[in-house]
Amino acid sequence: MSCVFCAIVAGQAPAIRIYEDDGYLAFLDIRPFTRGHTLVVPKQHSVDLTDTPAETLAGMLTIGQRIAKAARATELADATNIGINDGRAAFQTVFHIHLHVLLRRNGDKLSVAKGLVLRRDPDREATGQILRDALAQLRASPQD
Amino acid sequence: MSCVFCAIVAGQAPAIRIYEDDGYLAFLDIRPFTRGHTLVVPKQHSVDLTDTPAETLAGMLTIGQRIAKAARATELADATNIGINDGRAAFQTVFHIHLHVLLRRNGDKLSVAKGLVLRRDPDREATGQILRDALAQLRASPQD
Ligand SMILES: [Zn+2]
Ligand SMILES: [Zn+2]
Repeated sequence: MSCVFCAIVAGQAPAIRIYEDDGYLAFLDIRPFTRGHTLVVPKQHSVDLTDTPAETLAGMLTIGQRIAKAARATELADATNIGINDGRAAFQTVFHIHLHVLLRRNGDKLSVAKGLVLRRDPDREATGQILRDALAQLRASPQD
Repeated sequence: MSCVFCAIVAGQAPAIRIYEDDGYLAFLDIRPFTRGHTLVVPKQHSVDLTDTPAETLAGMLTIGQRIAKAARATELADATNIGINDGRAAFQTVFHIHLHVLLRRNGDKLSVAKGLVLRRDPDREATGQILRDALAQLRASPQD
């Protein structure tokens, strides 16, 4: 399988999964800009904004919003950057459309204006567990 | 009116408008990172991902996608970065939710990894006209 995200969806490549339903999968970015940096992908392969149905994008964003809200209730995030890199000139590197959910903390060292530094999360499993728990909490709360 | 985007929506502050319907307005960012950098806002004020309804976000993204597709058919864009800065630690500076549509060109000098440089568009009116025309073209094309 030539698309790494299709391989992850099919269970043929490893990933730390945060959320899954019939249409979508969310998992930790293997090269996180911040701890908990998550990607949301549709299970059905498409490339970018030019070929992805608007309804699919809406579904991706709804899940991204829930992850952002859940993450804000944990120590991992005070804020989030949500985004899609649409095309090579916009730094898209995997050509299966994906929504970035970048967790940000007050005073974090990350500055989009100063430079994003790729790094490895020293405990990806724990990070995944925090986010899965936070999503479960969000589902259990009365206002959602 | 203390919210500058509400003031733009109400016609009490100037903006170069790209698209408008009953629920949403898109206009050029006054401090563009690239030529044609556009913001999509809901007319109804909300702050960020914590208080904006998922349906409103979906509507914003659908419009952002159309602007991205339209822009890619012009000289302004080969690609786009679409994003929401959700909260102060994520560089949100206007607390009326907005979707950035950042137009990117092959070989442009902008690098998120190296630094975003604020600049002024020398001909904002022309830029707005190009995008409005491209959206009209998209509406007229059979596949959309
Ligand atoms: Zn794929
Ligand atoms: Zn407002």
